[in-house]
Amino acid sequence: MGKLKIAILEAGVELVPKEISNHPSVVKNAARRGKPPTHTLLDVSIHYSAMLRIRDRFKRGRPDIVHVTLLEALESPLNKKGLLEIYVHTYDGKAIFIHPSTRIPRNYNRFTGLMEQLLVEGKVPPGSPEPLLQAKSMRLPDLVRAAGARGLLLLREECERESVRSVVVKALNNALLIGVGGFPHGDFSQETLEAADYCYSIYEESLMTWVVASRLISTAELLANIL
Amino acid sequence: MGKLKIAILEAGVELVPKEISNHPSVVKNAARRGKPPTHTLLDVSIHYSAMLRIRDRFKRGRPDIVHVTLLEALESPLNKKGLLEIYVHTYDGKAIFIHPSTRIPRNYNRFTGLMEQLLVEGKVPPGSPEPLLQAKSMRLPDLVRAAGARGLLLLREECERESVRSVVVKALNNALLIGVGGFPHGDFSQETLEAADYCYSIYEESLMTWVVASRLISTAELLANIL
Repeated sequence: MGKLKIAILEAGVELVPKEISNHPSVVKNAARRGKPPTHTLLDVSIHYSAMLRIRDRFKRGRPDIVHVTLLEALESPLNKKGLLEIYVHTYDGKAIFIHPSTRIPRNYNRFTGLMEQLLVEGKVPPGSPEPLLQAKSMRLPDLVRAAGARGLLLLREECERESVRSVVVKALNNALLIGVGGFPHGDFSQETLEAADYCYSIYEESLMTWVVASRLISTAELLANIL
Repeated sequence: MGKLKIAILEAGVELVPKEISNHPSVVKNAARRGKPPTHTLLDVSIHYSAMLRIRDRFKRGRPDIVHVTLLEALESPLNKKGLLEIYVHTYDGKAIFIHPSTRIPRNYNRFTGLMEQLLVEGKVPPGSPEPLLQAKSMRLPDLVRAAGARGLLLLREECERESVRSVVVKALNNALLIGVGGFPHGDFSQETLEAADYCYSIYEESLMTWVVASRLISTAELLANIL
């Protein structure tokens, strides 16, 4: 069996944008943590009022979604057997490459610290020739190619209904990257929709990113007779 | 199909114990948050050095495990269809009852605040006649009865290997509560082992609590033709 390849798309993981770096909620949190404001992660649970002024605010400042989804993915038997690749493509156009042996911190506050280091330095550990995590500005079609995939299969509530099993089989047989929205609600951007070669819906309602990821992964585990 | 009933057992969710409430790491964190030390949640990511002196420290101070597992469970299609009950039984002997419509905070720091309120007040919202969350001191066999189950099926690495599907079918057919360890490593206590009517292993290595929960839930979703 080939590897299951999943990308969390338009994920709300970014450093505080300059336009709100002077807002009291941003300045206060950054000072307490001893970091410059633009070296701290945007987080709606801390920066709610500052974020009222920014564009697409419902998609942004949600590192918690990526955190839970990566914990689910990297701890899976599928990943431990070397049969999973998981990528993140952020709202602001960065691709995050994750080595499968990466041990994501269980604690959220440590995870945000790790993401800050990654986005400031570009790599974790910084300067490593074989980093566990790497972030690069990259358009989505380029990430699809970098992942060694032949196309992008998008999961989107509005598309044609298909079983999880069919989606996973199709992705495995055709070396497709499966794209899952990394935002809490709302639709993909036009750019993401245009990058998709296939589009399916697996359920009648929207599901949280980590639930979708775990269903894809557990289906691949069944197909590979792992669990 | 009957409901799938899961309990997270010996979960590391407790208030800071009196014996370490004077430790600098405890006092500092409590002061910053404006709470008495014994009204704050024990958390190894904050209280590591204080916890060096307490018993069974590897099982304790891990609310993050319960957080991720509850996010996985309560957001599942199985729960949204009314076919899941999830319970927590803590290291210090409290049963936590969770209404299936509870929206667990996505943010970890808000989740720990919620758990503090629950453990201090006994209910969330406090004083509500129909609370979303309720905590009661209760031995494990009493929780099994309170969950309306006829027995406890424990998942434990050392027990006889069985497929996830067989475990779920057996639990559904016999109205068993499935117990999953809520601690990062180590074994169940003697008391938990004695409360178990059945014991199986679903994988060759230990798995994180949320991975086990999501595999049980996704299997029940397949059986119920939900996903």
